[in-house]
Amino acid sequence: MKLKTIQGSIVAAHGFRAGGVFCDIKRLGTGKGSQKGAKRDLTLIVSDVSATVAGMFTTNQVCAAPVKLCVRRLKKGAARALVVNSGNANACTGEQGRLDAIEMTRAAAEALGVPVEEVFVGSTGRIGVEMPMENIRNGIAAAAQVLGKTPAHAEAAAEAIMTSDTRPKQMAVEFKLSGQTVRLGGICKGAGMIQPGMSATGKRPAALHATMLCFLTTDAAVPQRVLQPLIEEAVALSFNRITVDGDMSTNDTVLILANGMACNDPKADFTPLREALNHVCLDLAKMIVRDGEGVHRVVTVHVKGARSAREADAAARAVANSALVKTSWHGGDPNWGRIIDALGYSPARVVEDKVNIGYSASGSKLTVWSLQNGQPTDVPFVRLCEMAAPDEFDLHIDLQLGKGEAVIYAADLTEEYVDFNKGDVTDPGTLGG
Amino acid sequence: MKLKTIQGSIVAAHGFRAGGVFCDIKRLGTGKGSQKGAKRDLTLIVSDVSATVAGMFTTNQVCAAPVKLCVRRLKKGAARALVVNSGNANACTGEQGRLDAIEMTRAAAEALGVPVEEVFVGSTGRIGVEMPMENIRNGIAAAAQVLGKTPAHAEAAAEAIMTSDTRPKQMAVEFKLSGQTVRLGGICKGAGMIQPGMSATGKRPAALHATMLCFLTTDAAVPQRVLQPLIEEAVALSFNRITVDGDMSTNDTVLILANGMACNDPKADFTPLREALNHVCLDLAKMIVRDGEGVHRVVTVHVKGARSAREADAAARAVANSALVKTSWHGGDPNWGRIIDALGYSPARVVEDKVNIGYSASGSKLTVWSLQNGQPTDVPFVRLCEMAAPDEFDLHIDLQLGKGEAVIYAADLTEEYVDFNKGDVTDPGTLGG
Repeated sequence: MKLKTIQGSIVAAHGFRAGGVFCDIKRLGTGKGSQKGAKRDLTLIVSDVSATVAGMFTTNQVCAAPVKLCVRRLKKGAARALVVNSGNANACTGEQGRLDAIEMTRAAAEALGVPVEEVFVGSTGRIGVEMPMENIRNGIAAAAQVLGKTPAHAEAAAEAIMTSDTRPKQMAVEFKLSGQTVRLGGICKGAGMIQPGMSATGKRPAALHATMLCFLTTDAAVPQRVLQPLIEEAVALSFNRITVDGDMSTNDTVLILANGMACNDPKADFTPLREALNHVCLDLAKMIVRDGEGVHRVVTVHVKGARSAREADAAARAVANSALVKTSWHGGDPNWGRIIDALGYSPARVVEDKVNIGYSASGSKLTVWSLQNGQPTDVPFVRLCEMAAPDEFDLHIDLQLGKGEAVIYAADLTEEYVDFNKGDVTDPGTLGG
Repeated sequence: MKLKTIQGSIVAAHGFRAGGVFCDIKRLGTGKGSQKGAKRDLTLIVSDVSATVAGMFTTNQVCAAPVKLCVRRLKKGAARALVVNSGNANACTGEQGRLDAIEMTRAAAEALGVPVEEVFVGSTGRIGVEMPMENIRNGIAAAAQVLGKTPAHAEAAAEAIMTSDTRPKQMAVEFKLSGQTVRLGGICKGAGMIQPGMSATGKRPAALHATMLCFLTTDAAVPQRVLQPLIEEAVALSFNRITVDGDMSTNDTVLILANGMACNDPKADFTPLREALNHVCLDLAKMIVRDGEGVHRVVTVHVKGARSAREADAAARAVANSALVKTSWHGGDPNWGRIIDALGYSPARVVEDKVNIGYSASGSKLTVWSLQNGQPTDVPFVRLCEMAAPDEFDLHIDLQLGKGEAVIYAADLTEEYVDFNKGDVTDPGTLGG
């Protein structure tokens, strides 16, 4: 299938408009300087007509108010608008938080003239702080005045959902569906508290574990019963396969709106949409890892030969979340000792003298093995160092015990991550989620 | 029971002698400067008479050759000597590693004139590097020449097992057992790859997850069938409850030798020994956390009110190993949002509006609560910052769901940890285990 990359991300699809504004959700006031104050913190996304909607949410048992509201509204399956803020997660905010999430959708519904139950909401930022509702109401009203569908509007929307992200993350593609041209685009954010384990129901999938938010729009005509399994598969292959720091957030949310304005046959073969969705979600997920807090190197961990897919996933996550493996990646050190150590304490069955560990260039199948059948190969250390030196590379692990496979998109652990996240208690504005 | 702290650690008990020497196990040669070359790297510990022996070992599926040899020799239950090296873990070294571990015990047996099957062995250091057996043989011969029972001998033995440890860790106590004065002492090492999950058989206990090594000697007369359960309990309450970085090593080993030279009744009530052993192991375990790689703050995480002890343990470990919680501790930030987030994704059942989170001074029961029933208390942020400011403090979590309790001795995550463990690939001597 041919996918054409196009401009406009979240507003690339017909009938969608977006706007992002600054409404001072962190209540920085005016004393903090114009640059810091200028970063947008509230996004509105609107469809001209009612869209079908599907989603995936954090499986953290401590789950933010906006997530709970979205799960409830998803049952009706119809959406006209999304309102999303950064700077405050509206998590662990009790009954007031629940009311504030509803009030955000009510204010958006009023500003846009759409039914309140067709407005969805997302929040990201510090946990346990009450929402600054006056600022948010002002922000919603202001955003409703600046809606549009140029790439600049999409960029403003993508910027307003950022927290510690250093750059907006967005993309869109165009493809054919039952003869019609269809568009699919999205924006997302990540940075820290990134090891999503989302499901549609809050029940944990087999393998688990940011605040990451992703909002997708398409003008395909697709019934919810088709759209929901498609987003579940796409998330399982993308956002649920990334880890920056192994911490799963209270707010992880992926939502997709499909408004049908491309006028394809709603009983079409949706394979092209499925492929496009998997492609867009994986690209967006990788953007989150690359822009993770303090991340210097991105490592794709491929495990095969596990007794089951679940064990392969567990083995890959043990390696991807090991502090010692992650610091060795930061140092460009092809240390297979720490890797086999992590495999050995993972829940996956591992037999030392069967383990193969190797490196390839990113996306290449040409693997340089450092360990085969548990024994160091004669590949020189300097050659292995070359393999672990690029900003992105692939790690290949073969347990040689079965047919289970898994891929995890991982990152190194750097001094910048620690410095950023320790914050400064004398300046609570620096303290993260 | 009265425990008196005494000098001499590993040689405090009657009939034990020890010696530590430098034999250049890292093969630094002479080019690396005299200071670096001077750190001892091989320890011998000898009992004048055959001792009963008991032990606990890593449950990592990738398990070093010396561990496998100890597990095998433990079945006979008799020991005369220990030979321990730092600088090389003899892990992932295949058949040669297995032969080298045996050869170390053979060389020690010969130098000391004791039966080879009564010699036990421990190794710590880099994984996957062949043992420098000529240096080791020279070291064993040299150590056998310098054995003694002064505090200086104990200190040399404690130093020689150090890797990234900044200081030797040792202690000894004296107490009464069936009317006789008995002594118990030990040395240990830790620093990185520290979240031991040891068992006697390699089978994993319910809750899991250093190289940490600990060697204990006592002149108590105690049969192995009594000694083994005592060491299992002591390790479960101490070394298996610490975490520095969440990585479980291939080499974790605790061994205790009891030579009977105190001449107590071997059918005595061993409660005093049990208490002394629990006390010494916990003190030694805490020394490992305090001297963990880059550690600035030590936090004792108390969880109660979990549905089971296993869930309490899982909850405490999720908090203790969260990169975001650990960096907030480094910053002195009493961030309960990251704590409740980690609780929420732990395998333990957590209900947001039942969770209490508080702080106390180290060892104090006087808790200052930051969160009660899921709601922030009105304790001012500056007061909470004061509670999280000391080098050591206690964190209290009450899930209010049941009677399960657990304690984990944890540490912060600092830039120094990252800097140390990233190493320098242009100088492989800086690369860790």
